[in-house]
Amino acid sequence: MIRIGIYGYGNLGNGVECAVLKNPDMEIAGVFTRRDPDSVKTLTGIPVYKAEDVLQFTDKIDVMIICGGSATDLPEMTPYLSRYFNTVDSFDTHANIPEHFEKVNEAALASGHTALISAGWDPGMFSLNRLYADAILPDGKSYTFWGRGVSQGHSDAIRRIPGVKDARQYTVPIEAALEKVRNHEAPEFTAREMHLRECYVVLEEGADPAAVEEAIKTMPNYFLDYDTTVTFISEEELKEKHSELPHGGFVIRSGHTGLHNEHAETIEYSLKLDSNPEFTSGALAAFARAVCRMASRGQYGCKTVFDAAPADLSLLSGDELRHRML
Amino acid sequence: MIRIGIYGYGNLGNGVECAVLKNPDMEIAGVFTRRDPDSVKTLTGIPVYKAEDVLQFTDKIDVMIICGGSATDLPEMTPYLSRYFNTVDSFDTHANIPEHFEKVNEAALASGHTALISAGWDPGMFSLNRLYADAILPDGKSYTFWGRGVSQGHSDAIRRIPGVKDARQYTVPIEAALEKVRNHEAPEFTAREMHLRECYVVLEEGADPAAVEEAIKTMPNYFLDYDTTVTFISEEELKEKHSELPHGGFVIRSGHTGLHNEHAETIEYSLKLDSNPEFTSGALAAFARAVCRMASRGQYGCKTVFDAAPADLSLLSGDELRHRML
Repeated sequence: MIRIGIYGYGNLGNGVECAVLKNPDMEIAGVFTRRDPDSVKTLTGIPVYKAEDVLQFTDKIDVMIICGGSATDLPEMTPYLSRYFNTVDSFDTHANIPEHFEKVNEAALASGHTALISAGWDPGMFSLNRLYADAILPDGKSYTFWGRGVSQGHSDAIRRIPGVKDARQYTVPIEAALEKVRNHEAPEFTAREMHLRECYVVLEEGADPAAVEEAIKTMPNYFLDYDTTVTFISEEELKEKHSELPHGGFVIRSGHTGLHNEHAETIEYSLKLDSNPEFTSGALAAFARAVCRMASRGQYGCKTVFDAAPADLSLLSGDELRHRML
Repeated sequence: MIRIGIYGYGNLGNGVECAVLKNPDMEIAGVFTRRDPDSVKTLTGIPVYKAEDVLQFTDKIDVMIICGGSATDLPEMTPYLSRYFNTVDSFDTHANIPEHFEKVNEAALASGHTALISAGWDPGMFSLNRLYADAILPDGKSYTFWGRGVSQGHSDAIRRIPGVKDARQYTVPIEAALEKVRNHEAPEFTAREMHLRECYVVLEEGADPAAVEEAIKTMPNYFLDYDTTVTFISEEELKEKHSELPHGGFVIRSGHTGLHNEHAETIEYSLKLDSNPEFTSGALAAFARAVCRMASRGQYGCKTVFDAAPADLSLLSGDELRHRML
């Protein structure tokens, strides 16, 4: 049995707890939280410990799945924990991955651990599909579309506007743009041409809707460069219709083969997810298995999804994989 | 530079020649043919040698891409050549893969070579997608649909019927079946419910169309279990409209996550290919790069697409991959 630790117990930690139930070769050794452990009830009754006591578990956990946020948690947690445990995280601030990699690599190499960062779907499965498609169809162009789904970063940005009580932002891929890519037009898109932003906003009492709408639509980086719709709804409607965290998207590569580029080829990978954190957790669990195997072979240091041989993700043996999946 | 040998020069050999042009770290050392080399003109003027002289090239070729058929060529060629070269093949008789693996593994291990079998798209990229989807979404069901595309095996089967001069068979996935899978109905399909078979047939002079149609539609394994349409056309029309080899298909996994399986998740991978052999060749070239790297690390023996770390397929360094693709 692979003994999994869960470090951090929010949406992602819950998801990992559920994902481990689906993997008969895994069990959870414990959940670690910065909150008071007595205040945390796990879904399946697994024990909860104080985060500060985690080093008492170095011989009881094979892989620690670190379920923190990318903004401030993981840049501290993953390098620290990778000195004592094999780890997996879902660090998803794309621009800072190289820096995160270096820090985690140093910690893991120095202590003889394997630490796989940025597992999930983007980064994660989408990254793998970008790599495979680029390698087998080198003369082409890749596109990534996200949605329709809830962007938690954009929802948070709206919530920080004065007068906003709560909000949900959906990122929506533009169908006409997808079609252009599939038709091998190899377009150069602006941000506005690829995605719409749909906002559902609950106002504080007495707030000015026009001012809030203006504040959203002119927010740089988040909304200014997009066609954005703002719909004001009641708190009850938000809870009823927008409490889930669906997401998904498309990685499409359009390219050409042949001596004179006479043949068009399209590779398309897509996800349609009712639960972004639960799907991400499924990926974290599978890559935890790969980390366990890599560590047992002495493949230490920081790894990414690009470094794990696909067979290492599977519960099946090489022989079973060749019989059933090849 | 990775020095590639091409063993066998039909559609696939042509495709590999074109694919190598798209990979700036590769060059072709030579083409090997069982025909008279003087009778073979390559697309780009690369030299052609007799297949029987291949052992004179053991120090001039880093990876031999074996471009033979799966029925009789590859079961002989790959074990033989893997004693002298690192190799890649596209062996695609799914049921015989385990036996092929054992023979190739013995040859490659004994001589210190790396031999990757069954690269292409199915087996190949479709297999990888079956494995990844199964590993990250263990509670689910996977489906593979093929087409719309030319099945060369089925076209050949029609050509063997007396009275048939030429034929092309298209495998067509049934849209309603795809929709059922995407809607998480987790159906159990018969063969007939997943694919149609469209046949375009040129008759010999004086042949009886009714007899030919009957012979096609009642052919066991190939057509009997499918809804099959037969359209008789002239030789000119076949040449004009059906001389290309398009193909493609879908790997879809539908599954559930959450403590009570309350969330549905869908993973879909699809290919739409103008040229089946050229796309397959692109995969062969990328896996040849991976074979080269695995061999340089002493990872000998028979491998499949499941054993190659994705990073090994790419021309980019680990650092470049993390910056650009993750």
